[in-house]
Amino acid sequence: MSAFSVPRFLEEAPDPSPSSSEVTERVRQFLQRHAAPAAGAAAAGAVTLARPIVVITSGGTTVPLERNCVRFIDNFSKGTRGALSAEQFLQAGYAVIFLSRHGSAQPFVSDFQEELGAQTLMDLFELGADGGLRVHAAQQAQMAAAVARVEAVLREGRYLHLPYTTLFEYLKYLHAIARALAPGGPAVLFYLAAAVSDFFMPWADMAEHKIQSADGPLTLSLEKVPKMLGALRHEWSPAAMIVSFKLETDIQILLQKAYGAIEAYGVHLVVANELHSRKDHVWLVAQRDGAQVVQQIERPADIAEIETLLVSEVVAAHKQHMQQQQQQPEQQQQAR
Amino acid sequence: MSAFSVPRFLEEAPDPSPSSSEVTERVRQFLQRHAAPAAGAAAAGAVTLARPIVVITSGGTTVPLERNCVRFIDNFSKGTRGALSAEQFLQAGYAVIFLSRHGSAQPFVSDFQEELGAQTLMDLFELGADGGLRVHAAQQAQMAAAVARVEAVLREGRYLHLPYTTLFEYLKYLHAIARALAPGGPAVLFYLAAAVSDFFMPWADMAEHKIQSADGPLTLSLEKVPKMLGALRHEWSPAAMIVSFKLETDIQILLQKAYGAIEAYGVHLVVANELHSRKDHVWLVAQRDGAQVVQQIERPADIAEIETLLVSEVVAAHKQHMQQQQQQPEQQQQAR
Repeated sequence: MSAFSVPRFLEEAPDPSPSSSEVTERVRQFLQRHAAPAAGAAAAGAVTLARPIVVITSGGTTVPLERNCVRFIDNFSKGTRGALSAEQFLQAGYAVIFLSRHGSAQPFVSDFQEELGAQTLMDLFELGADGGLRVHAAQQAQMAAAVARVEAVLREGRYLHLPYTTLFEYLKYLHAIARALAPGGPAVLFYLAAAVSDFFMPWADMAEHKIQSADGPLTLSLEKVPKMLGALRHEWSPAAMIVSFKLETDIQILLQKAYGAIEAYGVHLVVANELHSRKDHVWLVAQRDGAQVVQQIERPADIAEIETLLVSEVVAAHKQHMQQQQQQPEQQQQAR
Repeated sequence: MSAFSVPRFLEEAPDPSPSSSEVTERVRQFLQRHAAPAAGAAAAGAVTLARPIVVITSGGTTVPLERNCVRFIDNFSKGTRGALSAEQFLQAGYAVIFLSRHGSAQPFVSDFQEELGAQTLMDLFELGADGGLRVHAAQQAQMAAAVARVEAVLREGRYLHLPYTTLFEYLKYLHAIARALAPGGPAVLFYLAAAVSDFFMPWADMAEHKIQSADGPLTLSLEKVPKMLGALRHEWSPAAMIVSFKLETDIQILLQKAYGAIEAYGVHLVVANELHSRKDHVWLVAQRDGAQVVQQIERPADIAEIETLLVSEVVAAHKQHMQQQQQQPEQQQQAR
C-alpha cells in the first residue's frame, strides 16, 4: 500500500462524534464572538479580531487497532504543558480553543487533577460534624480560586473546549478548526502541544472484532500518518502562525528534528523538549534570514512553571508575526 | 524467539515501584489483620480467616513499546465492573484487595468519576455568595453518602488499594499477592476482572529511545503473554477460588473461550461478557461432574447494576467452594 496523503487520510477516517461540521459551526461562532465591533478595513471574507485566538492542542492521541475498539496504541501525555499554557494565554488576553485528549489536564485545575481522578478522593473531601460534605480546609482556598478563574473565563466566552480521543478525531477536528479560523488571518495562532502518533492502522485494514490470540506472536503493520503540518501551514490557515512541538528522549536527535520541521513544513517556531528535563528547560527553534536560530529557555528557581516564560516568548513572537503580516500581506499571498 | 514461560516472564520484567516485596509485605499484614482471633485448628502455616478475602483486579494493562515510555498499547477498560463489584463484596462482608489500573474507576465513587476527571469540574463545584467553595446541591447528598461509605470501609481496615499501570506491574503484583495470600486457603477468592493484554514487547527487545518514524511503515512484533491462570490456580494460591473473565465482541467465540479457560487452567468459574451488552447480561460458565454448566444472569429493569446479581452468585459459589475444601483438604493437597 502506498503512503497516505492528507486528503486520503481525512477521507477514509471514520466520522467523529460530534461531527466535523458541528465543530466547524462552533468554531465559526467563536470567531464571530471575538470579531472587532467595527471591522471596516478587513478584506472580503476576512474577520478583524478584537483579540488574538490561540488553538492549543494537548494530550496524546490513540490509534485504534480494532473497529470495536478494545485495544489501541496510546501516546503518553498528561497534557500538563497544554493546560498550563492555556492558563497563560488566557491571562495574556487571548481567546483559547483547547483541543485536548479526553481526561487529560485542563487549565486552572491541573493541580487537582490527581485528587480529582478519584484515586485519592479522601484527600479532597471530608464530612463535617453534621454529616455535610466539605472540601478539606487545606485545599479550600486554592480550589475556590481555581473555580473562580474558570467561571470568569467561561463568562467572558473566551474559552472553547473540544475533547478528542483518537488520532482520527484529532486530525479531523484540527482540519475543521483551521479552516473555520482562516478568516482570522495572522491573529490566529496554532500551539500544537499534543503528542500525535506517527503511525496508525487504516480503518479499512482493521479487524471488526477483537484480535484473537490463539495463533502465536502478533505482528502489527502500521502506516505512517501523513504530515499535516504542511497542509495546516500552507492550505488550511495560511496566514496564521504555527508553533509546533518536538519531544525526544535523545537530545542529539531533538534539535535536528526541530529544525527539520521548519525546513520541511514552514512552521514558524518549534518548541523542542527532552522528555526528562522538559519542565526545567526548552529550546525555541526558528529560522531568521535563512539561518537557524536556537534560544534556550531556562526556568529560574523562583518560577514554578516554565510555561510562564515559554508562553510569554511565544506571545512576543506572535505580535511580531501579526505586524509583519499586516505590513506585507501581498508577500504572504504570493507565498501561498 | 521461543514462547515465554511464566517464570521467565516474571524474571525478565522490570522491577516495579513499589517493589513486589513491598506489596508482599502489605498483603501479609492485611491477611493477618483479618485472621480469626482464636485460630487453633489451622494447619501449620495456614491462617484461618475471620472473613473471606477477595482480590479484585480491574482496569486495563498497558504494554510499553519503548523503555523511556512514550508509546504503549492499551486495553480499553474504564474499570466500572471491578469498582461496582468491589462495593458489593464490601457490603457482603469481604475484605477487599483492589488491584486496579491507575486512574480507573474506584468503589463508591464511580458515579462521580466523569465529574472528578476535572473535565466537568464546574458541574461539581460552585462558589457561594461569600466566595466559599461548595459542591452543587444536586450532588451533595449522593456524594456525602459515598464519602461516608469510603470512610467506614477504610476505618474497618477492610480495603487495600494497589494501583498498577503496565502489564509487567500487574503480573508481578498479582504473583506477589497470590503467594502472600496462599495461607488463607479456600477463604481467598480471585475475581480477575482486569483487561489483561495477550501480547507484549519483551523488555530486552525494547528500544531505549522513542521509535523514529523516518523509515517508512512500522512493523511491531509482539510476543504472547504466558497464561498466568494455570500458575495462579495450581501453584501460587492452590486452595483459593479463581473466577476469571472473558470479554469478546463475537458471541460465537465467547462461550467457547470461557469453557476453554476452565479446561486449560482449572479456573472454577468464568464470567463471560459481550462488549456491548455486558451491562444487561452475563453468563457464568462452570464445570460440574465433567459437564459444562452455563447460567445466564439477566439484569431486571428495577436493578441498576448487574454486579449486584453477579457478585451475589459468585459469593454463593465461593461459600460452596469453602465448604467443599474444608471437607476434602486431602484431595486438594493431592491435586497440588
